[in-house]
Amino acid sequence: MPELRKDPIVGRWVIISTDRAKRPTDFMREAVKIRGGFCPFCYGNESKTPPEIQAYRPSNNGTASQRDTPGWTVRVVPNKFPALGIEGNLNRQAEGMFDKMNGIGAHEVIIETPDHDKTLATLPPKRIEDVLWTFRDRILDLKKDKRFKYILIFKNHGEAAGASLEHAHSQLIALPILPIYVVEELQGAKQYYIYKERCVFCDIIRQELDSAVRVVAENESFLTLAPYAPRFPFETWILPKQHESAFENSSSHMFQNLASALKNLLMKADRVLDNPPYNLVIHSSPVQDSQNDHYHWHIEFMPKLTKTAGFEWGTGFYINPTPPEEAAKFLREASVEEPVPVAG
Amino acid sequence: MPELRKDPIVGRWVIISTDRAKRPTDFMREAVKIRGGFCPFCYGNESKTPPEIQAYRPSNNGTASQRDTPGWTVRVVPNKFPALGIEGNLNRQAEGMFDKMNGIGAHEVIIETPDHDKTLATLPPKRIEDVLWTFRDRILDLKKDKRFKYILIFKNHGEAAGASLEHAHSQLIALPILPIYVVEELQGAKQYYIYKERCVFCDIIRQELDSAVRVVAENESFLTLAPYAPRFPFETWILPKQHESAFENSSSHMFQNLASALKNLLMKADRVLDNPPYNLVIHSSPVQDSQNDHYHWHIEFMPKLTKTAGFEWGTGFYINPTPPEEAAKFLREASVEEPVPVAG
Repeated sequence: MPELRKDPIVGRWVIISTDRAKRPTDFMREAVKIRGGFCPFCYGNESKTPPEIQAYRPSNNGTASQRDTPGWTVRVVPNKFPALGIEGNLNRQAEGMFDKMNGIGAHEVIIETPDHDKTLATLPPKRIEDVLWTFRDRILDLKKDKRFKYILIFKNHGEAAGASLEHAHSQLIALPILPIYVVEELQGAKQYYIYKERCVFCDIIRQELDSAVRVVAENESFLTLAPYAPRFPFETWILPKQHESAFENSSSHMFQNLASALKNLLMKADRVLDNPPYNLVIHSSPVQDSQNDHYHWHIEFMPKLTKTAGFEWGTGFYINPTPPEEAAKFLREASVEEPVPVAG
Repeated sequence: MPELRKDPIVGRWVIISTDRAKRPTDFMREAVKIRGGFCPFCYGNESKTPPEIQAYRPSNNGTASQRDTPGWTVRVVPNKFPALGIEGNLNRQAEGMFDKMNGIGAHEVIIETPDHDKTLATLPPKRIEDVLWTFRDRILDLKKDKRFKYILIFKNHGEAAGASLEHAHSQLIALPILPIYVVEELQGAKQYYIYKERCVFCDIIRQELDSAVRVVAENESFLTLAPYAPRFPFETWILPKQHESAFENSSSHMFQNLASALKNLLMKADRVLDNPPYNLVIHSSPVQDSQNDHYHWHIEFMPKLTKTAGFEWGTGFYINPTPPEEAAKFLREASVEEPVPVAG
């Protein structure tokens, strides 16, 4: 008998198939392969991107390399085909009964490594930490711009997950509005807080650590778990164990532990699911409310194992063929002492 | 400059690209082709499906053919691999702070034609009407079962839209809960009604008929339009012009006009978008509230033209590369006097 489960934050019900649960090898999909060819994100091709916004350039004999030249480890550039324009003032308008505004926003690309053959999973922990610091730098910089209400960090890995360039990169979009899923999580978390006077995510962490069945991994600062009512098979979250509303408020010690937790999860997923395409999103409090008692920032990792299952788009109703307890067990037990080789 | 637009029902903001608007030929995708091969939904293979629940069997010399034999035009069977089980009593339970229930529900397949070479678009209007009557029959029958709160009708056309069998069919799922998008639409429509004392969909219909820029087609009973803030390129809705909360309350005259409106839209989409894969969903009021002043049933048609764009899953934030005014113009101007040939 399948099971209906309710997400405790947004109240979304999902169907969890239990009879014919899908194991990792039951999913038909293509492993993400690095093909090569000309790439504007590669070392030496810095002139092929828009001028850089920021880069980490380790100093060599006391001098760092110049901007838009080689010598960087992480590099941020404007998206060449931005979804939103950075110039202008916000202008909210009615169109009869409808509401619109001009498309003001920032759309940036964080190139995670100069090396085309690396993925976020196979970078050394210190380099992943640099990527996380770069996210923080960009968020803190864009927070100064009072036009923006939300700053989204996300990553599409592999063509099937929507990546148009295969070179390892993340994206940032700064928005003058709040995206609807963020609104729903904020409202759900607020409602829970009003009722219980506790953060719903903190309660989840306590219960999951106690039952242990959905725990994938744990370190000093972070818990990696399969959520109770996931929409997708092998959906996995990483949450800070101590309450914290916004990603950018994390201490330097936290970034070190997050880099380790993230690398561990990505390597386990590569091992268990054979280098799957995936999407990764950071859910964090809105810019104007970055310290509160009810919202708890976290990372959501969603491997793309199933075809866009059609009617989900029209209903928000998901059928998940893999119980999270089984997904967590596969990931928990995967050994990742050696890096997973990426097919060339 | 791109534009941010807000859906007036659920309050979801979307980005509408205006600078490099995508035209129909800009989308890379495979046209849906009928391949053939053994098919359990075909005429003569009735024994290969679970026993039929209902069928339209036109009488021949005064006698209709027997169940689970040829002689039908529309046939309803249980899904061979149901997402939910039909037997048992609802049993809501806690699992610590989480909520679950056993997966009770109905999952049926409506085979729209015995002919493998036909699609819903190429069926004669009278046959499409029979499919719509079949939806109504099944909804009215399942409404008697007090365990169900919502009955979803949806259609996945083409493998890329999630169809596992290519023979023309729709699906029905009866649920003991409300899917989250339905909850959001109901809440949004209710809120609008409390504020304005008018149905938000009725207001949309009046404004769209007045401005005409997003109108695709119109007949005596139905309006076909591109919504103001669509998530997907060429997303199109069909709404009854007169307020009506639930699909199954429609009069026989309405079904005739709906069959005509639906055929017209599907043929236009086949013409303009070259037989695209698509999803279609009927949004209707919940079983226990099928007559009210705030909710207005409608069909949402979503051709699958873009790759699942990754971060939408994590944010609910959509970037639509085709302004609805342009999509509506393409569809409005497409001539569909002759049926679109389906590649064999």
